[in-house]
Amino acid sequence: MSATQKVTKMPAKHANVGVTDTVKKILANYESDNPGTKANICRLLMTGKLAGTGKMVILPVDQGFEHGPGRSFAINPEAYDPHYHYQLAIDSGCNAYAAPLGALEAGADTFAGAIPLILKINSSNSLIQAKDQSVTGSVADALRLGCSAIGFTIYPGSEHMLELQEEITQLSEEAKSVGIATVIWSYIRGPKVSKEGELAIDNIAYGAHMAAQLGAHIIKVKLPSDHLDLPEAKKVYEERKIPIKTQAERVQHVMQSSFNGRRLVVFSGGATKDEDSVYEDARAIYEGGGNGSIIGRNCFQRPREEALAMLDKIMDIYLGKDA
Amino acid sequence: MSATQKVTKMPAKHANVGVTDTVKKILANYESDNPGTKANICRLLMTGKLAGTGKMVILPVDQGFEHGPGRSFAINPEAYDPHYHYQLAIDSGCNAYAAPLGALEAGADTFAGAIPLILKINSSNSLIQAKDQSVTGSVADALRLGCSAIGFTIYPGSEHMLELQEEITQLSEEAKSVGIATVIWSYIRGPKVSKEGELAIDNIAYGAHMAAQLGAHIIKVKLPSDHLDLPEAKKVYEERKIPIKTQAERVQHVMQSSFNGRRLVVFSGGATKDEDSVYEDARAIYEGGGNGSIIGRNCFQRPREEALAMLDKIMDIYLGKDA
Amino acid sequence: MSATQKVTKMPAKHANVGVTDTVKKILANYESDNPGTKANICRLLMTGKLAGTGKMVILPVDQGFEHGPGRSFAINPEAYDPHYHYQLAIDSGCNAYAAPLGALEAGADTFAGAIPLILKINSSNSLIQAKDQSVTGSVADALRLGCSAIGFTIYPGSEHMLELQEEITQLSEEAKSVGIATVIWSYIRGPKVSKEGELAIDNIAYGAHMAAQLGAHIIKVKLPSDHLDLPEAKKVYEERKIPIKTQAERVQHVMQSSFNGRRLVVFSGGATKDEDSVYEDARAIYEGGGNGSIIGRNCFQRPREEALAMLDKIMDIYLGKDA
Amino acid sequence: MSATQKVTKMPAKHANVGVTDTVKKILANYESDNPGTKANICRLLMTGKLAGTGKMVILPVDQGFEHGPGRSFAINPEAYDPHYHYQLAIDSGCNAYAAPLGALEAGADTFAGAIPLILKINSSNSLIQAKDQSVTGSVADALRLGCSAIGFTIYPGSEHMLELQEEITQLSEEAKSVGIATVIWSYIRGPKVSKEGELAIDNIAYGAHMAAQLGAHIIKVKLPSDHLDLPEAKKVYEERKIPIKTQAERVQHVMQSSFNGRRLVVFSGGATKDEDSVYEDARAIYEGGGNGSIIGRNCFQRPREEALAMLDKIMDIYLGKDA
Amino acid sequence: MSATQKVTKMPAKHANVGVTDTVKKILANYESDNPGTKANICRLLMTGKLAGTGKMVILPVDQGFEHGPGRSFAINPEAYDPHYHYQLAIDSGCNAYAAPLGALEAGADTFAGAIPLILKINSSNSLIQAKDQSVTGSVADALRLGCSAIGFTIYPGSEHMLELQEEITQLSEEAKSVGIATVIWSYIRGPKVSKEGELAIDNIAYGAHMAAQLGAHIIKVKLPSDHLDLPEAKKVYEERKIPIKTQAERVQHVMQSSFNGRRLVVFSGGATKDEDSVYEDARAIYEGGGNGSIIGRNCFQRPREEALAMLDKIMDIYLGKDA
Repeated sequence: MSATQKVTKMPAKHANVGVTDTVKKILANYESDNPGTKANICRLLMTGKLAGTGKMVILPVDQGFEHGPGRSFAINPEAYDPHYHYQLAIDSGCNAYAAPLGALEAGADTFAGAIPLILKINSSNSLIQAKDQSVTGSVADALRLGCSAIGFTIYPGSEHMLELQEEITQLSEEAKSVGIATVIWSYIRGPKVSKEGELAIDNIAYGAHMAAQLGAHIIKVKLPSDHLDLPEAKKVYEERKIPIKTQAERVQHVMQSSFNGRRLVVFSGGATKDEDSVYEDARAIYEGGGNGSIIGRNCFQRPREEALAMLDKIMDIYLGKDA
Repeated sequence: MSATQKVTKMPAKHANVGVTDTVKKILANYESDNPGTKANICRLLMTGKLAGTGKMVILPVDQGFEHGPGRSFAINPEAYDPHYHYQLAIDSGCNAYAAPLGALEAGADTFAGAIPLILKINSSNSLIQAKDQSVTGSVADALRLGCSAIGFTIYPGSEHMLELQEEITQLSEEAKSVGIATVIWSYIRGPKVSKEGELAIDNIAYGAHMAAQLGAHIIKVKLPSDHLDLPEAKKVYEERKIPIKTQAERVQHVMQSSFNGRRLVVFSGGATKDEDSVYEDARAIYEGGGNGSIIGRNCFQRPREEALAMLDKIMDIYLGKDA
Repeated sequence: MSATQKVTKMPAKHANVGVTDTVKKILANYESDNPGTKANICRLLMTGKLAGTGKMVILPVDQGFEHGPGRSFAINPEAYDPHYHYQLAIDSGCNAYAAPLGALEAGADTFAGAIPLILKINSSNSLIQAKDQSVTGSVADALRLGCSAIGFTIYPGSEHMLELQEEITQLSEEAKSVGIATVIWSYIRGPKVSKEGELAIDNIAYGAHMAAQLGAHIIKVKLPSDHLDLPEAKKVYEERKIPIKTQAERVQHVMQSSFNGRRLVVFSGGATKDEDSVYEDARAIYEGGGNGSIIGRNCFQRPREEALAMLDKIMDIYLGKDA
Repeated sequence: MSATQKVTKMPAKHANVGVTDTVKKILANYESDNPGTKANICRLLMTGKLAGTGKMVILPVDQGFEHGPGRSFAINPEAYDPHYHYQLAIDSGCNAYAAPLGALEAGADTFAGAIPLILKINSSNSLIQAKDQSVTGSVADALRLGCSAIGFTIYPGSEHMLELQEEITQLSEEAKSVGIATVIWSYIRGPKVSKEGELAIDNIAYGAHMAAQLGAHIIKVKLPSDHLDLPEAKKVYEERKIPIKTQAERVQHVMQSSFNGRRLVVFSGGATKDEDSVYEDARAIYEGGGNGSIIGRNCFQRPREEALAMLDKIMDIYLGKDA
Repeated sequence: MSATQKVTKMPAKHANVGVTDTVKKILANYESDNPGTKANICRLLMTGKLAGTGKMVILPVDQGFEHGPGRSFAINPEAYDPHYHYQLAIDSGCNAYAAPLGALEAGADTFAGAIPLILKINSSNSLIQAKDQSVTGSVADALRLGCSAIGFTIYPGSEHMLELQEEITQLSEEAKSVGIATVIWSYIRGPKVSKEGELAIDNIAYGAHMAAQLGAHIIKVKLPSDHLDLPEAKKVYEERKIPIKTQAERVQHVMQSSFNGRRLVVFSGGATKDEDSVYEDARAIYEGGGNGSIIGRNCFQRPREEALAMLDKIMDIYLGKDA
């Protein structure tokens, strides 16, 4: 009945070929979101070398705040400059650049409109001991800086978790009302959690699920190990023979735990390591149906040309061009 | 004097036969509530197979958040998908579906208007130790998602109870002002309470009463044991020979403790168990005058067809069709 | 990939058979609305004898306010009682009952949850001359009374139109944010418009289009005549040979003008007339693809039994049972 | 001193080549705007076939509201459907699509993120006489619908101008604080202005200047005639021999009057006319240094294929490919 | 009674020569700030003997609050009078005067417009043990007192850091919206930090970086020692051979850590010491590319004439006149 059904598609004569079906399907999963928020998720998915594929590579740079500047940037001193990261994210064809308030402010005008931004809205530092963060930005900041999303860290096992989840609930509600998307960094940490447990597949899957329940549009977790941590969970995983042997299987289980793939999940690799390990990670994420990588130190702690080459290869893996 | 007194009732020629006298009597108990809140309580009571009977079966799914996704859903992997639960609640003829923010958001559009929703508005997780929850949703969320009620957990024996009751007081006040009903999950837990005490009839009845005092429209408690926990209470129960031997008697006592039956009370059965135990519970609730079951794991941890058959039989029990 | 794809549909054993595909298709046209607002539109479409068909019959009673009580109710004195209209709407199987604040308040508790309500949120009276209305209710009133929608009158040709459209823009924005739908009564009136022009097909279609542009979910217009009023429009209608000869053709053109059928449009018939004319109107609306009738005086100015019989027959027409 | 100075530019291996120097220079003119607003202006300039050139073609469709649906769409009935215009703007490679609230809402989800949107935030209609508009949308609407800008009409010569300019001042201040750009439609109309005066070069230049003074980022005016209207202005134009003979000269004078080219100005052509006139207009705008066309009726009142071909040729003119 | 009565007026050594290129380059680093905030930063940089050089000497007097009045002022009793410090800052050609609310209020009228003011907006005292401060002024105070900036202390290693950073985030967001600049005093203190660690170069650089990330326009840190404190950082500093041997090298590293010199950093010298040490500090700051000194006790705990002479010499060092 609708007139548009009769419309003949004309081959586009211009670069901007429009949102792909893959991306449209992903957007349809965000059922309760207004078009403004969907437009920002769309922007994240329609930018860079992976535009339109449903895969993402995000450059996050909050290590200066979290670990200190020398420890983060001395190995590649160009990286002391906030502009360096904006430029790296753009030139490498990343989907987005994520950073705390000050770093975004320091380049927001030069790079206005050049790449989707994620304002990391809570922060901690290495001089304190608490597994906690506090709010260091606002939704209003995200709007005035032209950001597509806010980013927020939760520590599901921490004694501060209940407070953290209350904070992100309020911030995310406000963000959604003005068309800003929410990215949750979910890290397993806390008194009941062993060092090994921080990467345990049951805990990582649980952390991803909690982020989804808190209303995240995009979830960031670490790549899980095959360790099982919570006794009650371990029992079920073994009884039900949930496949968690390979990294790809574990990624698949995390996706399943994130509303059966209805939420975007990107994986981080942690500390700097050799290139082959980075590619292996990306391959496992690709095979397991994950949505991509959020990769910081492994980028900016390498010389720019090396980082660009590495990101190019990672994106090729997500494009299925990895032979 | 009123003109309607003279109105002759005409047999309805349409399906929607209107609110039953049973439901009208229940609504009359909510004396201070505005018509908007009553309309939502009415919706909860006029939906599904038990519509109009004053009985309810509610499907609650917050175990992914509270216990972890693998532990909750691995046994029936379809249940990883938030749509699965919406559909199960609708197809089985439940009165309502209750879940945390993220899970509701993930199906809110597909199932808009299809079944009354209860937004579980505070949450905790199994990686932390505190008997506490924090707020993970808002009354505004309930409105934008089209929910009929908010759900909130209290732990009457916990060191966090005073904070919890302050939170629900504020949230419930706000909810009532915009026509949203309040459901309180009342679980006995805390340093002074033994494992056995968590199910003790005096404690469960006390927990139901507190929920009523906090302004709940609907109260959820566990089915109580015949244990008596608080020494001061034990003395009175024994002196006054309060009948608590059978499950039906205990249900009756909980109803009595909930403003003499002026508040709706539904009972949960806990971990997955054999079908016969589930039916026995329902029979006791029915005989004791309880308002029904809130039944999660026993539904979604069974294959869909089994769950549907089981829910059908439970509802038959509440319809008095159990021969 | 999603689990629900594998779910086998089971024949429902309960009355509440769920939202029909017809209604789901209509809801999908409200692209920018949150699930709460869609749930309320769904309620309007899933109630009464026409539930699930996409057709509606709405009982509006604001004539006491607009024309005076004697002029409106003396012919059928039972209609002085606000309860009368609630009961008539319920017993006849209407989709909704619409009235100003006071009349709704007077029965809101008795009929809480019994039928979807539309709060007529601006009003005028016959003692003044201005083609104007002013705001006599609020979105907060709609929430506390349990209404599914607000109703608002605009006079597109009036010198007060600019003020009216500014008011409904603000009220509708607020309503949408809390899940309340918007119904716009669009009446052509004003200094540039002749008496004949008030029903002219070009003007009525224009009025429906404006209501759609102002964000209405449901539009109420009068059934148009084949008169053409605005010279610039007349020219185009004649040149393009827009078919407007039959009432069904004119209804079809109004639907087309309402975003090509993407908005619900109901038609009013005006003053009391003989039954056959009322049925003829309904047939034309049905044939032209309109969504139904909003029919006040022709209902409550007849004896109850007559009105019930007439509404029953009108609904049969919308069910295609009119032989 | 800054590290980025040393950064070697690497040839981009991905489509998203980034903001051009031309666009960066334009953005630098918006000195007081926050990065969020600049990002939205950037989006408008970096979309479609003209992306990066500093030229724009915008599709505006508010004629249904302003002139009536039949008069606007009967000639090309597909255009009754709001989706038609979204699709036309995307397929033709326009920079943006502008429409009132209802029309944007009707496609906002289907086309989320697909093209920059301008929410026309005040409206009038042809049934009233006043040269006035009233507010029919909000900045909050723009955010929830994912719009890059609000659009607002002023009538500099109208008795309502003072009220209109007060409204846009407030709306634009709010918009700028949340990163939304402002487009002002400036039409010369009013009791002191003759029909000829509405297009007079002195008046159009004056109207563009007022829009700039009111804080517009983008200004829309009609293509001016060589008529001179205000006696005081006429004297100066003649004394100073301001060149206004050719259309290109007049466009140049309008640009000069818009803060010496520091504000983007697009020109509208008015009623449907033959293709050659449309191209001639575009050539004059191009030669005179204007920023492009805002072209509604000449697009959607032609069959889709014709409109696409015409827009393609217009864009070629702005690309300097017009031989 | 007032100390200023005895003050001899000194002829101004500077003329109001307009904003220099050096200052313009610095202002350009504040990319996301509105012109109002930039104008206040400009005022700070275009005042006093160092006007236009990009170097600053600021007089801060919060020691009465932080250490007690006797301990602070007994050595130079004129300094008990708040006017004394205003006058000293003006007469010495300082760029700004910084103090808590009460001290600014006590001279704000007499010296209105005479010198840029920084309202120290949080405070602590020596009678308590917590490494914490609380808010003792507002952005509204800063506006009504005519201040150019607010000043705020953070303790990055303290258990109160998370709360402090949340406070300054909110205050700074508000300040930026009304054109007030933000100065952050960043002091390393806390349970994990040894006495030696408080001045360690890795910690001081980290503290400066955090202040930058929190959105500070101007950062105040102590001059660092060559100690390395955090084991993870120490490792990197030694591996990467970051030069930290001389004070100038350490200043340079702090500048690098402050967004590669994109943020203004001033250094404090701590307790009163001999003049030569003060000059040595200034020379190191100058050589290392720091932006100047914030020097309190070493000024007001010396007789006025001595202080004026010393400040004059320090400024000569920053002017490169130090032979």
